[in-house]
Parts: sequence; structure tokens; C-alpha cells
Amino acid sequence: MTIDDRDTRLVPSLDGPSGPTDDWHTLSEDDRVHVFYSLSRGEASELFLSLDSADKEALISALPINERRMWLRLLALDDAADVIQQAPTEERSALLGLLDNRTRPEVEALLEYQDDVAGGRMNPSFAWIRPEMTVAQALAYLRLQAADRVPNIYYIYVLDRGEQLLGVISLRELMAAPATHRAEEIMRRSPVTVHEDTDQETVARILADSNLLAVPVVDDDARMKGIITVDDVIDVVQEEATEDIQKIGGVQAIDQPYFRTTMGEMLRKRVGWLSLLFVSQTLTATAMGVFQDEIATAVVLVLFVPLVISSGGNSGGQAATLIIRALALGEVRVGDWRQVMRREALIGISLGAVLAALGAIRVLGSEAIFGSYGDQFARLTFTVSLSLIGVVTWGTLSGSMLPLALRRVGFDPANASAPFVATLCDVTGLVIYFSIARIILLG
Amino acid sequence: MTIDDRDTRLVPSLDGPSGPTDDWHTLSEDDRVHVFYSLSRGEASELFLSLDSADKEALISALPINERRMWLRLLALDDAADVIQQAPTEERSALLGLLDNRTRPEVEALLEYQDDVAGGRMNPSFAWIRPEMTVAQALAYLRLQAADRVPNIYYIYVLDRGEQLLGVISLRELMAAPATHRAEEIMRRSPVTVHEDTDQETVARILADSNLLAVPVVDDDARMKGIITVDDVIDVVQEEATEDIQKIGGVQAIDQPYFRTTMGEMLRKRVGWLSLLFVSQTLTATAMGVFQDEIATAVVLVLFVPLVISSGGNSGGQAATLIIRALALGEVRVGDWRQVMRREALIGISLGAVLAALGAIRVLGSEAIFGSYGDQFARLTFTVSLSLIGVVTWGTLSGSMLPLALRRVGFDPANASAPFVATLCDVTGLVIYFSIARIILLG
Repeated sequence: MTIDDRDTRLVPSLDGPSGPTDDWHTLSEDDRVHVFYSLSRGEASELFLSLDSADKEALISALPINERRMWLRLLALDDAADVIQQAPTEERSALLGLLDNRTRPEVEALLEYQDDVAGGRMNPSFAWIRPEMTVAQALAYLRLQAADRVPNIYYIYVLDRGEQLLGVISLRELMAAPATHRAEEIMRRSPVTVHEDTDQETVARILADSNLLAVPVVDDDARMKGIITVDDVIDVVQEEATEDIQKIGGVQAIDQPYFRTTMGEMLRKRVGWLSLLFVSQTLTATAMGVFQDEIATAVVLVLFVPLVISSGGNSGGQAATLIIRALALGEVRVGDWRQVMRREALIGISLGAVLAALGAIRVLGSEAIFGSYGDQFARLTFTVSLSLIGVVTWGTLSGSMLPLALRRVGFDPANASAPFVATLCDVTGLVIYFSIARIILLG
Repeated sequence: MTIDDRDTRLVPSLDGPSGPTDDWHTLSEDDRVHVFYSLSRGEASELFLSLDSADKEALISALPINERRMWLRLLALDDAADVIQQAPTEERSALLGLLDNRTRPEVEALLEYQDDVAGGRMNPSFAWIRPEMTVAQALAYLRLQAADRVPNIYYIYVLDRGEQLLGVISLRELMAAPATHRAEEIMRRSPVTVHEDTDQETVARILADSNLLAVPVVDDDARMKGIITVDDVIDVVQEEATEDIQKIGGVQAIDQPYFRTTMGEMLRKRVGWLSLLFVSQTLTATAMGVFQDEIATAVVLVLFVPLVISSGGNSGGQAATLIIRALALGEVRVGDWRQVMRREALIGISLGAVLAALGAIRVLGSEAIFGSYGDQFARLTFTVSLSLIGVVTWGTLSGSMLPLALRRVGFDPANASAPFVATLCDVTGLVIYFSIARIILLG
């Protein structure tokens, strides 16, 4: 997407919490085309522009060939590239052929970049002036560029003849400046830039932190190649958050909306992690097998197995989630692990103590009312409470360290999902519980 | 925050993945003031403007009283209001007193709004013209407004004398239009607006969907009160994602960065959910108590308890996470529950079948190698596999329906956190497992 004046055409239909795109995904492809044709030209282009790239591509593909050209050409260059990227490889050159001779090479150049770096996100057209222009000359020149559909003229970039970026002036500054001043006198030098290979997450962070509306993209020789605008960044922020949320929930990242993901795709994205978790979790059966003697001696122990081990998983999931998000927002870095460990050890012991007290109340309460646990109840209470402190402390510590360790070795910390941490804590929790039971209950 | 030209002052220090604000949170308050004083005036204002509201407030409070005025006045009106909002109630009027007589009433008016509605997020200063102005007159008038530090002149709002919003023109359109045309001839009528009481999440969705740079805020009488700019929305999107992620991880939303949250606060935000989960989880001990006879008859059953019940929790957590995110992005709505249920029932059965096969392999493998389970191994295999299908299907269904049900009754769907769903599935999973065991293994 690009900041573009034509966007002001998006009128009352979007003036509420549920725009047309909300309903769009519940329609079949035929219905979509039908709806699309039922709209006036203005309404149809509003709707079209409000769709995301995948929806745009699907809609274009569903239209007769002779109508596709017009809709594709309605898009800004980076949007057109995104839409073509969504098409199956064999159909891309047909779509490229619909573009005019001037824009086709630019869109092709954009397609050369990976989708998730600055070069793949940027818009190659931007407003620029030469350093020696006066304010009056610059404003006149910009009126030409505005008429020529350069979508973004809010920042004006000052380039030398080698296309190297010398400085930047906001349109507001230019309008407020005396007409005879020269651009190089009023421009801000050494502006924030990103390299064309910079990762999109980093670009998003820079734009969000700096409050800029757009950031220029440069190549190795500091030549300016395009701009990335803040509205593109909203998409990146949303996408990255979605990816992290899905991973934290133990699902592989799904890049399509829920109803647009096929059942087969949905199954594939879920069955992998679930099977991996299951196979890891079979270790609990092994661990319990190891402690079969203890179980046979005091069957009452097994009643508290789910309670004790799930407490480790829950506290570990909390810690992992907090650290994953703090890493994503740049609040915590791998180098901070000692500080994190100190904090989480204290928090883990405190949380464990609270649950140990609750656990003791549960065992003692049951004993007082039902006399459930016979003469071993005091030792059982002690076993459950002590195990809870150990399991929760261990869960909190491992949950907080795992995302940092993953980041350290180059993996996405969000892979330390709540179910993954829970599985880890289930197995270790069993060992902690039965080891403590062996000492206290069975002596 | 406000889109503002002074932001272009944020220069090379931010030109990389870790800006100054990343390190900021690891410093003590004294160190922060020390660092701040060591910077040049230009660098200090860069740093100051890049901080979030809470950090800005903390820094201002740490400075001598006679220096606070300058820094507070450096901020745009909505930023100043956000900073003052962060201060303890008793200090707010002192901070308000630092503002000049012209801006104080406007900031006070902003403080009247709740922080999370459009009125609380908007900037009350914006560029406007009258409908009868010509393009040349409008441009000259805007140059005055730009000089008067109206921060955003990218959209020009056309207001009548009653301050009612008639239309909007982008600066680019204005610059490209013939000088003698009148504003009302070229403006776009009925632009997208939001009401001052509109929730910030809705505003974020409207801005993200519409590709607008800013949206005007109007009151009950359609009078224009201010604008919300797209960069404010990035913060909203990040905040909402963080809140959802934390809730999904079973933590109450924490609105401060990790290291800035005190240990006491951190503990409070975690102990509530954890205790609630623990108390719910004690039902597993109760459930296992109910099936004590079955356990006594076939102790081997308990070996697979963690494996079977955690599979329900994992599949339920996946489904809940997907639906929570799809709801947040508007991909799924409460009314779609039938469709979701159909899909998830099919997916649940399929996932259950895969895990049932893996479970059967595990039991049979153990039996073949170690002869672990005696002559009941065939029935045990059947019990474990059938339970897995039941537990996973139930987990997937309840995990997907719970967020929809919460939304339906007006709660935040993100409260259907992975650990909450897991706890629910642990209790019901035990009942399913032992009921099947009673029929197959012992029946």
C-alpha cells in the first residue's frame, strides 16, 4: 500500500467499525465477482483498493482478461508488485504484460527483491528536487510531480545528479520557507535511511520509533531507490504480531485469513507442532514408568500429577510469553539474560509459594472433609507443596530463558510457544514431583 | 505522537536496528538524567522526542523545575496531554501550569477524554480552509498555518463557519489544481470521519483499512474537533497486539515495558490468573478421585494420563489462538460460529486421528520392546487411541468456540488463553479418558 491521495475516495462505506473487507471473506468467489459488478465504478474502485494483496489478486484473476488491465494499472507500483507476487509463478508474466511500458520495468525490479526486506516493500516513486533549486522553483517543480501522480509528496528528497541523497525537506517546511532560499540551505542533512536489504521488521521499528511518515531506501552507494511509507508499516506490525501470536499458540504461521486458509493447509500448519508436542509428551509416560514403584506404594500420588505438572506449564507459559513479546518490542535483549534470570527466579519462587499454600489448603481441606488420604496426609501435603515450589520456579525460569536461548542461536524466540514450554515442564515436573515424593512420602 | 516535521531531526542515531530507546530502559533514573545532560541540545531533543509518553514524563519529572517548561512545550498538544496523563494526579496541575495560556485550555480539553477513545488520541490542531477560497488563496492561507506550527498539512479540511466538516482536499490535489478553482469545486465530499467517542481499536482498523494518513474526529453535531494520524495508530496496533499476546499467555495485560514493571506489579499481574488456573486445575484431582477404582484395577492407565490430557490442551490452545487473532483482525465474527464449528470439528477429528495413530505406535512399541503392559496391551492401545480422538476433537471444538462465546457476552476473547483452555481440557480430558477406559479396559 502507499499513501496516496486517491485514498480519500474511500468514503462513507468505511465510516464504521465493519468495512466491506470484513464481509468479503465470507463470500464465495462467484459472489465476490457478482458484488463487484453490482457496484458503480467509483464504489468498485473503493472496494478494490481496500482489499489486501491476496484479495486483489484473487479478484483480478476472477475477472475477464480484458478487464484485468484497468484494475492492475489503478495500483501504485509497490502495490502492483505485491499483487503480482501473490499470483502463481506461471501467471506472473501475463500480469506483468498488462502494465504499460514505463511501469513494467519498475515493477519487475521490485519483484527481484525478497518480499520481507525494505527493497521489496518500497515505492520507487517519490518527490525529489536538486540542492540548488530555490523554494519557489522547488514548489513549481513539485506541482509538476504531483500532477504526474507521484503518490507521496510529504517529504521532498534532495538528490545530486548521481541520485545520492543529500537531505530532506518536509513539504510544510518548504511552504513556510522564504521563496528565494535554496533547497540546500533549508534541507536537513543526513536523514534517517534504511538499506534496501534491511529486514522489514527493523524498518517498522525505525519508522515507529522515529515518528517519520516515510523513510528513504538507499543502496550500497547511498543512491536513493525509493521510500517506505508509514501505512506499509502498519501491515508489517500486524503481520509480525499475527505470526508471533500463532507461534505462541503452537501453530505454524498462517499468512492467510482464517476462512481463506483451506482445510488441508490449516491441518498441515497444526499437525506438525501437535505431533512434535505429542512425541515429546510421550516422555511423561516413560517418566511415570520409571516411578512405577512409588506409584504402586502410594497410588494417592497420581491424583495430584495433573495439578502439579500443569502449574509448571502455566507459569512457564506466562514467562515465555512476556519475554517473547519484550524481545519483539526491543524491551529486552539477549544480553540482559542475567537480569531476566534474577527477576524470574524471584518471581518463580514467589508464585510457587502462593500455589504451594493453595495446594496445601486443597489437600488439607479434602482430608478434613472426606478423610481422603489416610494417615499419610501430612506427608502428602508437604510433598505437593514442596513440589509446587520446585515445579513453578523451574517452569518460570525455563520459560523465560528459552526464548532468549532461541534468539541467541538465531531462531525465532516465538517458537518457545506456551504448549512447548508446557510439555517441557510436564516431563521435568513429573521427575521433580516423584523425586520429592520418594524422599518425603516413601522415605 | 503526531506527524510533525521536526521528526526529520531524528537523524543517524536511529539509523540502525537499535535506537537510543532500546538501551534507555536498562539505565537507572540518575543515569538517564546524566546521559541526557551529556548530549547537545539537538541530540537531547532527538532523544526526548523518541521516548514514549511514560519515559518522557519520567524524564521531565527528574529534571529541575525550571527546565521542565521547555521540554513540555516542545511537544505537540496531544503528546503533551499524553505525558501529563502519565503523571500522578496531584502533579498534573503543576505540569499544566508550565504550558502557555493559549495551549493550556486545549490540553485540558484533551485530558477530559478517556485515553482510549478518538477524542483522547486526536490532535486538535489541523489545517483547514473555507469552501469559497480559491486554490491560490488556500495555498497562501496554508503557508500561514504551516508557519504557525500546525503539525499536519497533508490533508486540508474544508469547514463552514459553524466548524462543520464539508469535505477534504489533499495537499497534493490542491497543488496540482488550477489556481482559480474554488475549494468546494475540488474537495471530496463526505469524507471518512470518526466520532470523538469511537474506540481507538476501531479508529486503528479504519485508518489501516482505508490507507488514509489521518482521519478527522467530529462531535455529535458533525463539528470537526481534531485529527488522528496514522503514526498514532501504529502505537495502538502494537499496544493491542501486546495486550492480546499477554492474555493468550495467561498474564494480565501489562502496559509498561518488561524492565520498567516493578517486581510487585509483575507478581500481581501473574499470580491472579495462575491461582485461578490452579484452583480450576484442582478439579483434576477430584476427577481422578472419582475414578480411583478404575486406577486401582489398572494402574497402567495413569501412565498415559499426562499424554492424553495435554493433547487436548495443545489442540485447544491452537484453535483458541487462531480464533482470537482472527477475531482481532476482523477475519471472523461471532455470527460465523456455525462455519467455524464445522471446520474445527473436521480438523479436530483429523488431528485426533493422527495423534491416535502416534499413540498406538507408542503403546505397541513399548509393549514389543519391554513387554510393559502385560496381556491388556491391546485394550490399552485401543483405550489410549480412542481417548485421543475424543479429547483432541473436544479440545479443538471448545478452544475455537470459547473465544466466540466470550466475545458474544461482551468479554475480550483473548481471555480464552492457552492455559485456560488447557485447564478446561485437562479436567474434561480425564473424564473422557477414564470413561472410555471403564468401558473398554474394565468393562
